[in-house]
Formats: sequence, C-alpha cells, structure tokens
Amino acid sequence: MTNISNGATEFAGDMLSGYSSAYSRYLSLVPGAGVVRRTVDARATTRLVLGGGSGHFPWTAGFVGAGLADGAALGDVFTSPSAEQIYRVAKALPPAGGVLFCYGNYAGDVLHFDMAQARLRGEGVDCRGVVVTDDVASAAADNSAARRGIAGSLAVFKVAGAAVARGDGIDDVERIARLANARTRSLGVAFAGCTLPGAAEPLFRVEPGSIAIGLGIHGEPGIRTVPSMPARELAALLVGALLPEAPAGNSGRVTAILNGLGATSHEELYVLWGGIARLLGDAGIEVVMPEVGELATSLDMAGCSLTLSWLDDELAELWAAPADTPSFRRAAGQVPVADGKQLAVAVPKAEVADSRDVNGRDAGGRLVEQGDGGAGPEVDLARVALAAMLAAVSKAEPELGRLDAVAGDGDHGSGMARGLRAAVDTAGLGHRDLSSLLRAAGLAWSDKGGGTSGALWGVLLGGVADGLADDGQGYSASRVVAAVSLGRDRVVEAGHASVGDKTMLDALVPFVDVLRTAVESGAPLSAAWSGAAQVATEAAAATADLRPRVGRARPLAERSLGSPDPGAVSLALCLTAAGSVLAAPPA
Amino acid sequence: MTNISNGATEFAGDMLSGYSSAYSRYLSLVPGAGVVRRTVDARATTRLVLGGGSGHFPWTAGFVGAGLADGAALGDVFTSPSAEQIYRVAKALPPAGGVLFCYGNYAGDVLHFDMAQARLRGEGVDCRGVVVTDDVASAAADNSAARRGIAGSLAVFKVAGAAVARGDGIDDVERIARLANARTRSLGVAFAGCTLPGAAEPLFRVEPGSIAIGLGIHGEPGIRTVPSMPARELAALLVGALLPEAPAGNSGRVTAILNGLGATSHEELYVLWGGIARLLGDAGIEVVMPEVGELATSLDMAGCSLTLSWLDDELAELWAAPADTPSFRRAAGQVPVADGKQLAVAVPKAEVADSRDVNGRDAGGRLVEQGDGGAGPEVDLARVALAAMLAAVSKAEPELGRLDAVAGDGDHGSGMARGLRAAVDTAGLGHRDLSSLLRAAGLAWSDKGGGTSGALWGVLLGGVADGLADDGQGYSASRVVAAVSLGRDRVVEAGHASVGDKTMLDALVPFVDVLRTAVESGAPLSAAWSGAAQVATEAAAATADLRPRVGRARPLAERSLGSPDPGAVSLALCLTAAGSVLAAPPA
Repeated sequence: MTNISNGATEFAGDMLSGYSSAYSRYLSLVPGAGVVRRTVDARATTRLVLGGGSGHFPWTAGFVGAGLADGAALGDVFTSPSAEQIYRVAKALPPAGGVLFCYGNYAGDVLHFDMAQARLRGEGVDCRGVVVTDDVASAAADNSAARRGIAGSLAVFKVAGAAVARGDGIDDVERIARLANARTRSLGVAFAGCTLPGAAEPLFRVEPGSIAIGLGIHGEPGIRTVPSMPARELAALLVGALLPEAPAGNSGRVTAILNGLGATSHEELYVLWGGIARLLGDAGIEVVMPEVGELATSLDMAGCSLTLSWLDDELAELWAAPADTPSFRRAAGQVPVADGKQLAVAVPKAEVADSRDVNGRDAGGRLVEQGDGGAGPEVDLARVALAAMLAAVSKAEPELGRLDAVAGDGDHGSGMARGLRAAVDTAGLGHRDLSSLLRAAGLAWSDKGGGTSGALWGVLLGGVADGLADDGQGYSASRVVAAVSLGRDRVVEAGHASVGDKTMLDALVPFVDVLRTAVESGAPLSAAWSGAAQVATEAAAATADLRPRVGRARPLAERSLGSPDPGAVSLALCLTAAGSVLAAPPA
Repeated sequence: MTNISNGATEFAGDMLSGYSSAYSRYLSLVPGAGVVRRTVDARATTRLVLGGGSGHFPWTAGFVGAGLADGAALGDVFTSPSAEQIYRVAKALPPAGGVLFCYGNYAGDVLHFDMAQARLRGEGVDCRGVVVTDDVASAAADNSAARRGIAGSLAVFKVAGAAVARGDGIDDVERIARLANARTRSLGVAFAGCTLPGAAEPLFRVEPGSIAIGLGIHGEPGIRTVPSMPARELAALLVGALLPEAPAGNSGRVTAILNGLGATSHEELYVLWGGIARLLGDAGIEVVMPEVGELATSLDMAGCSLTLSWLDDELAELWAAPADTPSFRRAAGQVPVADGKQLAVAVPKAEVADSRDVNGRDAGGRLVEQGDGGAGPEVDLARVALAAMLAAVSKAEPELGRLDAVAGDGDHGSGMARGLRAAVDTAGLGHRDLSSLLRAAGLAWSDKGGGTSGALWGVLLGGVADGLADDGQGYSASRVVAAVSLGRDRVVEAGHASVGDKTMLDALVPFVDVLRTAVESGAPLSAAWSGAAQVATEAAAATADLRPRVGRARPLAERSLGSPDPGAVSLALCLTAAGSVLAAPPA
C-alpha cells in the first residue's frame, strides 16, 4: 500500500526531487530525468550511468556517488526511463573518454538505453551498454543472456564504479562489468505482492502461507509456488539453487548480497543470513564482505533475494574499494578478507571473569554441581512453589497476552512464562540455602524474562532473598513477612511507581499488608498467605478501574481503561499458586 | 507478517547471530547478549553502549562501529535487554575511563539499564545513563522527561559516539548526549500495524484510510487518528508539530531524520521529504546533512517519523564527523554545511546545449512558436488522427490495464495514454510539415510514455516520419505504404522480435501487408487503411492463442496464455481510430 503520495502521476517526480534535495551534498537533480554526482572522481576518464524504473530504491539512484555511479536515469514507477531521460543524464556529466551504461535486462530498458546510445554515438560519444542478467529464475543457464536483472546488479555496478574511480578507460570498465555480470547469480522469493501508487489493489498476490520462488521484482512469474518453510530450509533452497551455477575455475570466493524487497524486516533477513552463512561455510566457500539490507526493493513487496558473485583477485579488490553514495558507503582501507574466517565467536571478558552464568552453567555450557549441602525442606518448598507458579502462568498465558495487548505488545504472558521457566531451571540446581536459591531464580527470571516484569520480578525475588539470608535462625512467619516487605520496597524503588498507578504494585502492596496483619494476628503462614493472595487477586481485578500513570515508567496507556493490569493479574496468579503449595507442602 | 523465522522463541537469537556473522568485519558477538566492536577507537577513553529490544533494526545494533557506538545489548523482540545482557556487553569491552549507556525511555529498558549500572558501579566502573526522550506525542513539553525515545535517538547516539571518538572523557560525552537529547524532537505517524514473529494477527491495527498520529513504535497509543491526507499536508502536520518546540536561542540550524518504520517504501519517504524540505526552507531553517531511510523500524509496520535536532557548532561538527558501522556510514572530510543552501537545481548541460525540449518548450518552460509556415492539410489530418487515437486509448485504458496486469505491471493503458497525450500536445505546436510533426510526436511519446510500448511507438512514428520527409512530391497512398513499412522495419529492428512472439508486431505486420495489397489493388488510402485496421484488430485478438517469447525482450509470461497482448490490442485501436479520421477528414 502506498500511504504517502501527492497523486500517482506526481509520485516518481516528487520522489526524484525529494531524493536529490535530501542528498544534495552528493547529487544534482537533472530535472525530470534523474540525478548526477556533484563532482566526478578526479582520476576518472569514463562515466558510469545507471538507470531503471522508480519503485526499486536504492536501486539505482541511491548508488550515485564517489566510487560508484556518476548518474542514474529514473523512469516512472516500474517503467524504464525514456531514451530522452537517459540522454539528458549522460549529457549532464562532464565529457570524458566514454560512457558505460549499466542496467537490468528488461525490454523497455534495453530499448531506451539502445536509443540513447545511438543518439550519443551520433554525437561522437564512445558509449557502451552492459545489461545485467543475474536472475537465475528467469531463464535457463544455457540461455543466461535472456535472464532478468535483479539485486545482483549492485555487484556489477560496484566493481564497474570502482574501476572508473581508479581511472580505467571505457574498455576496461566494460570488461570488468561484463566479467562481474557473468559471475553473478541471484534468486528471489516473494511472500506478498506490492501495490502501485494510486492503486487500490496489489499488482499481484502471493497466497498467504506460500512462497513464490523466482517471482520477478515487478511480479513477473517465477518458477513455482511452495508452502511456507522454516528459515533454515529457505536458506538451503536459495543456496542450493545458486551453487550449481558457480562458474568453472572459480576460486571458491564470493561476495553475497541478501536483499530485502521492502516489507520484509531487517531482522528476518539476518535470521536467514545466519542459515546461508552456515551453508556456504559448510560448502567451503569464503564469503567476502557480504551486504544484508534493502538494496533493490519493489515498493512494499515482502520477499528477498540472495546473490552470490564469484570473485577473482581484481573483482575482490574492486568490491572492497571505498564508496560514498547516499545508500551504499564503504570506508577506505577495507581489506577483502573472507568474513567466514572471522566467524569464531569472541569469548567476552564477562564470561572469562565469571566462568559460571546465572543458570549455574560454566562457559562451556556444563552444569556446575554445587550440592545442596545441608539445605532444609524450605529449599524444596521454594522449588515446588516456583513450579506451581510456572504452571499457573503457562495456563493463563493466552489471557495474559490478551490483557497486555490492550496497551502493550501482548508479550506479558510469554515473558512471564519464559522468566519463570528460567527460574525453575535454576532452582533445580544445587543451592546451599533458600536465600541463594531465590537470588539465583530472580537473576535468571530477570535475564530470560526480560522487559519490565522480568526486571521487577528479579528485584522482588532478590529482595525476598536478602530478607531470608541464612543466619541459622530458621524461617519464622514474621521473618517471611519482613522478607516479602523488603522485596516490595525494592520494587517500589526500582519501578518509580506508587499504588494507584495501575502496576503490579496495586496487587503486591495489599498482599503484603494483609499478610502482615494476618501473621501479626497469629494466623499460620499458609492461611495468612492464602487470604492475602485472595485479596491480591481482587485488587488485580480492580485495576481495571484505574487510570494508568503517564510517565517515564509507562507509555501512554489510555486505551487500557476498563481492562485490568496484566502485571497485577499475573502477580496474583503467582501468589495464589505459591499459597496452595504452602497449604499443602510436598512430602 | 513475519515470513522468515525458525520459530518465535529463536527469532531474536537467530537474528543476533546472523547479524554478527554478516558484519563480523565490524563486530564480535557477545553470545546471548548483543554485539561489541572488534576494535575500539584508539583515542577513546569512554565507551558508548546502546541497547533496546529487537525488532527495530538498525536501531540499535546497526550503529555499532567506528565513530558511533562500542556495543549494543539486544533483548527479545520489543522487549528490553536484561540487566545481565547489558552487563555482559559492557564487560566485553576493554576497560576505559567510563561507560555511557544510551537508550530509549521505556519502563523495561530503564529498569534493566539501572540495574546493570548499579552492578558495574559496585565493581568500581564509572557509568552513566542518558535516556532519550524525543517523542513529542508521548507527553507534554513541560513533562518532556516522561517522553518515549524513538528514531531521534540516532541524533543523540551519533554525537555521543563522535565525542567518544575524539577522546572525550565520560563527563563530556554525557554532557553532549544530554544536550543533544534536549534539542531533539520527533513525531511519528502510522498507517498500518506490525505483526510479531509467530503471531497470526497484527499486534495492533490502524483503520485503512486513516493515519494514527503519534502512535508508538510498539503500538503505544498516539494522540489522535485522522483521515488520510496528501503527502504535502502530512509534511505540514509533522513540521508544524515540531517547530513550536524549537529550543530557545537556537541558531536556526537543524539536522533532520526522516525515518521509515518498515513497510513504507523509500520512495514514499522521499516524496514526503520534498514537502518537509520546502517547509523548513520557507521557515528560514537551515538543514544540515539530513538522513532519510530506515533507521529505527518496527518490524513490518507502515509509517514514518520526522526528527529535528537543533544544532550548535559543536553538535554540527560531531554530527558531520566520520562514522563506519554496518547501518550508518559517513565518509571523512564532510563539512556540516546546510543542504538547504545547495538546493538550487543544476541546469544540466543537455539543457544548455539544446535549449528546447521535445515538447517545443525552452528551458524556462515557455512554448517556442515556430509557425506552420506553408504546412498542408495533412498536418491537420495528423493532429486530428493523434487526437482520435488518444480518445480511443483513453476510453480503453482500464481494459488495457487489465490485459497488461495478466503478465505485466498493469500500466500499459496509462502509459499509452500518457505517451499519446504528449504526442498530441507536441503536434499542436507549429510544425513545418507532416514529417517533422510525426518525428516530434514520436519523441514526445517515447519520452513521456516510457516503457517498451513508448519506445516502440516512438520508433514507429520516427520511421514513418523518415518515410514522409518533405520532398515536394506530396503524400501518395503508395508513399504512405512505404513510410508505414519503414516504421514497421524499425520496430522489428529495435524490438528484436518476430511475428508470433506475442507483441505489437503480430498486429502491425498484417496491417502493413493488407494496406500494401489493398493500395496496390487500387483501393483509396482511407478504404485500404480501414480494412487493414480491421485485420489488425482480429490479429490482435488472436494473440490470445500465442505463446509469449521467452527472452531478453520479454519477461517470462507463461501466465498470459489465453489473454491477448495489450500492445497489439492498443495498436489496433490506434490504427482503427486513425482510419476513421482518414475516412472522414476534418473540414
């Protein structure tokens, strides 16, 4: 869907003028035609001019700048630039020994670039065209000249631009571009179609739950449609399609481009890249300076493409050469070493200094046994209580998620379950006493549960643990009250919140008050706890009537009015579950 | 929708390891916690550590590298990193004079960064935290410390990182970060919600056709929802919300960040930027090195945010300082001059050399009158014929679009109409003779119509024009046949296609054959043309039975089987319309 527009007919023109304005430090606008660099490379004797339809940014106008292209002609959305536009962009550059045009293999682009070249040749300009044909899905390997050009174009543009920057003449720049194109292969997949500016319906659709293999960047038909698959299988599909086309006599060295088509998140691309890098490593291939990101998009299309470009020493050096354009920048002094060689994971200092993590595992992941020593029954009780809390929260996970989605991101249930699971795992290890068990459980909860609630539960358990430090005095009911009060105080301090702010405190504070009063009245701890948990449950439900505090510790959550606070609800659930264990302790 | 995943629970971890693998030339992985630079700046005495939830890439892990951050702790999707993760990232860096933590103002992040700092302070590390609060929608100006942090964070991170790189101590780095935060304001808008990995439903929705102003990057409620509006009005809304918060005593100089949230295309951002730049210029504000792109996303959310960060000389210098990270790179030697001063449009050489464009307008857009001189009635006939063609194509535009959408991008009808309108406009100017009228019309069609069909129609009219060069011999029927034949030959040559390839040639070739035969049989031109146009119409319909040629000039278009070729259909329409004018010429 195109949401930002002044009208479909103005879209491409508005885009071009906005782009040249944002990056006027790099570019000059060629009105109605494209952009050219403000200054050309001093040593250059050749000009490199790209071009194509709009709707694929940064491909191609984003690549105009030092060390890459000198200009780009930009057509309407998904439409080739006209011969006139291409001609004007070329003529806006200072004359040189020759002009190399480089563009993707589409009928309209080929026609218009051919016509522009004919016109320039008529004026005595030495110009050549290199058509990029990297898309393996668009024709068979023995008919590779018929293939379309997609994101792998960048691998061709970049080395040609670096050749221009080092002063190559047109013959050498053309040679480099042709060599790179012959060694570059891409395959794309799509998950959902894109919508042209002004259109109410997508240009094409991909059935939800399926993947269109080889679909073109304008929706040209692909090879086949398959059901969705895990990222690691998709990685295998892409790598498996490209490796058989490795050029004969290659050095086993590639660069790779994992390109997002628009709506696919950067995170998804990195998830996929992890699988690709492993497979390339397993195949013994060295990957030099890969790029992962949006480099040739199709408006808001969901999908991606993988490019492998097989390098020789010259291509590797040109790929690594500095560049400075609005959308592709590379610092000077980069060396084209294989990144695969640097994949070994650094052992951070934190792990060296403290060889055991919060789960009692050492740096190698082995459990470090400590033994319970003389730990009493309260250690078992705490373990069972944590397990009961986990069971209660897991059961309520969907409901907690729904409550959280009212004003948050809906992950409260899953975060609580994740944190509690880590706490239970940690509690299952040997612990010297109740205090150290609770402290370890709190740290694990905070670390694995994450978010506000994970942090506050870590703080709460840490406070309780401090209140129950092993002093040989046992664990009287009043000591438990004092410890729980200490935990509450720590939560107040860390959370910067008060009763009435619609947080877990709205359940925790009445719980502690009732627990204290009941114990001071002589009730047994289990009875006092059960009664207090009941009060906490009611208080949690009553948070539906509270107005959330606006401020540092909470986003504006006006829309949560009428809905109880998920943190208070899950706290009450946990207190109730722990109370049932206290009432019927394990044998 | 998340389409690439190995499962929701592995998503953030897979993403982190894929990211650190792709950019291992910049980064080391801190397992399960985040990333740190491979090497820190030689002059640095302070470390800058960022952090936040996953799902916002490149914010924050994309900004780890030279001249920017030393490390970033990354939590689960939309979840703060845990204190343990933050601690580990800080400890993975070489010890220094101090550590500055910089992060957005969200409850979970504040809690966990506070706890990590407390732990590090306990170990004697001098550490500070600067919380970014740029989102004007999340609290009132007099309560700005309660505001959330969004994409404006980059303006704070960047200057703090540049201060670290130049060797500033922790006091100065903290001062710079606090100053930048106090001078940075952002406002976001959303068009559609995002979907968490593993979730079947979006986390939140924005009603189609509306814009949620101020909606948070995790879907936190905004200020209000308004109907969709043109880009220029959206620009005014954003600029209008931020300018009133310009800090007192500012120099009138800002940098700006126009950030895309994920599914919004780069093109849309540039369309919007054009409007923003104009408004800032009108307000007398100098814009220094703006950035437009995806800098703080929310998975696949559609929307954007505008940031203005008010610069003094020191901040401007730090903003312009070099940086080299996976997602934000800036070459050395950049000078923080206002881009606004460079907005003057360069007049390209092409326009200087040939002061009149193909539409007969000079560089200033004025029409250059040439006068018809002694042009005959055939000039009027051609004008009327072109107008009739335009009328026919305009009427059929939706149907032509539908035909094209079968195997193309659905713009054939609009492209034909656009090209013909330009041809008609050009033909309306004074022309010396029929040949020069047709040549100008063909050039205009090719330029404005674009794409394959625009190019081929330009070639076709150019050929006809050459065949009808004014030689004082008049325009006999056989001369017209020869001219149309020349046009056809040029199309065959330019398009690299043959009859049967399912292109416009499948209608053009029989048209010329029938026209020639009829004229040679003594039929008057108008009758011969009408008959030939009828044959062309039938031939165009019959292209439904043809299998499209796979190759350079055509994408794989298997799915067009059973549907006629839109180029052949529109050609037949035009020939028929021209024929009706020949049959009943204007008075």
